[in-house]
Amino acid sequence: MTTHTVQVTEMIAGGVTTPKGFKAAGVSAGIKKKAGALDLALLVSDRPATASAVFTTNRAQAAPVLVSREHLAASGGQIRAIIANAGCANACTGAEGLQVAKQMASLAANAVGCPADQVLVASTGVIGVALNIGKIERALPAAMAALGTDQGANAAHAIMTTDPFPKETAVRVTIDGHDVFVGGMAKGSGMIEPMMATMLGFVTTDAAVPKAMLDRALSEVVNDTFNAITVDGECSTNDCVMLLANGASAVTITDASYAAFTDALRTVCLKLALGIVRGGEGATKLITVTVTGAATTADARTAAKAIANSPLVKTAIHGGDPNWGRLIAVAGRAGVAFELERARVTIGPIVLFSDGTPFDDAAPEAAAYLKNDDILVAVDLGAGRDTSTVWTCDLTAEYVRINAEYRT
Amino acid sequence: MTTHTVQVTEMIAGGVTTPKGFKAAGVSAGIKKKAGALDLALLVSDRPATASAVFTTNRAQAAPVLVSREHLAASGGQIRAIIANAGCANACTGAEGLQVAKQMASLAANAVGCPADQVLVASTGVIGVALNIGKIERALPAAMAALGTDQGANAAHAIMTTDPFPKETAVRVTIDGHDVFVGGMAKGSGMIEPMMATMLGFVTTDAAVPKAMLDRALSEVVNDTFNAITVDGECSTNDCVMLLANGASAVTITDASYAAFTDALRTVCLKLALGIVRGGEGATKLITVTVTGAATTADARTAAKAIANSPLVKTAIHGGDPNWGRLIAVAGRAGVAFELERARVTIGPIVLFSDGTPFDDAAPEAAAYLKNDDILVAVDLGAGRDTSTVWTCDLTAEYVRINAEYRT
Repeated sequence: MTTHTVQVTEMIAGGVTTPKGFKAAGVSAGIKKKAGALDLALLVSDRPATASAVFTTNRAQAAPVLVSREHLAASGGQIRAIIANAGCANACTGAEGLQVAKQMASLAANAVGCPADQVLVASTGVIGVALNIGKIERALPAAMAALGTDQGANAAHAIMTTDPFPKETAVRVTIDGHDVFVGGMAKGSGMIEPMMATMLGFVTTDAAVPKAMLDRALSEVVNDTFNAITVDGECSTNDCVMLLANGASAVTITDASYAAFTDALRTVCLKLALGIVRGGEGATKLITVTVTGAATTADARTAAKAIANSPLVKTAIHGGDPNWGRLIAVAGRAGVAFELERARVTIGPIVLFSDGTPFDDAAPEAAAYLKNDDILVAVDLGAGRDTSTVWTCDLTAEYVRINAEYRT
Repeated sequence: MTTHTVQVTEMIAGGVTTPKGFKAAGVSAGIKKKAGALDLALLVSDRPATASAVFTTNRAQAAPVLVSREHLAASGGQIRAIIANAGCANACTGAEGLQVAKQMASLAANAVGCPADQVLVASTGVIGVALNIGKIERALPAAMAALGTDQGANAAHAIMTTDPFPKETAVRVTIDGHDVFVGGMAKGSGMIEPMMATMLGFVTTDAAVPKAMLDRALSEVVNDTFNAITVDGECSTNDCVMLLANGASAVTITDASYAAFTDALRTVCLKLALGIVRGGEGATKLITVTVTGAATTADARTAAKAIANSPLVKTAIHGGDPNWGRLIAVAGRAGVAFELERARVTIGPIVLFSDGTPFDDAAPEAAAYLKNDDILVAVDLGAGRDTSTVWTCDLTAEYVRINAEYRT
């Protein structure tokens, strides 16, 4: 089982500008409808940073995703800046949209003073609507002027769409006797309001990390954090997590310090990811779903995701109903090895079904437990020794209201 | 593409007792909480009928499913009766539950006068609660006394849980100059109220159909009907569709009449299946999802099911929002071949996205179309020539209310 216990020196207030050598800005470019709303974020490293990123697996990839992939390859993974906007996803916008995403990178590169392919681009918001590059061009000087080591919070605000709160965090970890910082910001709340989309994560560190090691660390950590959450099972056209390591701490991560660095990275990513779930559309509860007794790790993840995406499970927990039969039924239909006679269902500390026998007398105790805001449900598939943990939120009438509102 | 156009002589009022040689009854056994509610259904053929059935693929199979599978094999597919109850699913009830399901079959067999393995059993209702066999034993004489060719409607009522209306239908088809009837009843409304479950379908015909041909016909038809609907993506522990062909019409189906028989069977099953969707939990709209341009039939079905189960699509349609971006996003994440530059999205007759270009000006027209109760959405994946159609309903706050209600 992957453990989420982390040895870090300190979790601290902060975000993407907590690591040394990073500045950020969040300004209003007039892309969001609300006048003056922050909607353009800029993140700049004072030197080329080794970069790693994971992108949506959706086959309908938005223009900024295509451009960022290309720049990451063309630059050899050496990145100076990220420019991101909210209010328009620049997705399903054809050749014109691709041109706009490239222009965004070029404009930022000119302002920062680096090659265009050292800039990554991200967008979130309405799908299928053209992004007005003029608005970004006109707002860039203000963003450059605002850049600061104390502007991370504004950047975190500028990438929000209908997120109920910004998500940023930082940690300090001591490696070889030196402080290394990892910081991050994220947005996402499901696919949010009609035609709005996307989960974005931006993480910085002042450690120096060899490119291959950085890729490996991000891949491992994202699998346990951003990829282990679900609000509504949807995966957008624009999802991405970008990680910049600029080496400003003068500490280079080696095989010996890889675990400590990865733990720090996991702490940051998990906090951001859980923030997305807590701020999920209409959410009132954070639900941790742990599957044990799986034949394979893939089975464990598949079953955990099936439970976390089950509308029947999510509504039952919303209603405070310790409905273990639904957990059994979802585990049984998840397409994984499952042995009813050896299965077990636990809600919080209360066993409700074990080895073929229901313990329905415990239902009132489980119902009382479900009044909490943070809920743990666990299912043992009775088919092996592998495990997985994912996080989700409850499904509420407010989710329906948010997503059924008229766009037209 | 499977066509759902059917040549039948006549769709007629009726149900499982419309075909010759079948009697049914629906009585109150006191299993449902509400006093006097019909909750025990009996369906009897006056001679052994060739039987075919499909069962839930859930690995947590309820006791009646296990017993029915066993009896179908042991009897060589020759069945005299089906006994079904609502109010208790007899699922996750261990060895004792298995014994109770066997007793149900034996009691019905004794009453009807046939071997126990010529009886099939079905249950629907609360999971994990013991089924009181005494209640069934005491109600059986009343069910036997009530058996009649005009009692199909009572049987259709007796298998309901929280279905808003009973579902029964019949057709007459002329084969070799003789009338053949196919009739059916079904229940299901999602996984319905807390701890309630299951879709059940019972279909009768007075045609004589060789066992292998009957199995093939049911398998084909179920794939296009009961397996092509979804309310909430859940598959219960008790789902089953049972088909009895007793030959009382003296017409034997041959290769020459197979298509006509299968069309009649499809008409009955489709009407029952669409009844389940229309009566889905909280549903206000019936949504037909057609996927075209798929690389394979499996891809087409996978994409259509992903769209039909997408909470974002279902809430958008509920809200009358012609949100084509969500359809693209779901098609893109469905894990099937998808070419954005050749894809197309149609809502009703209105094209909203085609070959990489959005037609957002058509959104108001599409919004007006979405005020209808019956909605067609179509996505062309731009990746091939295969197609699939599935049916679902909208996702409403009422669905959440129904499923979040306290069970305890």
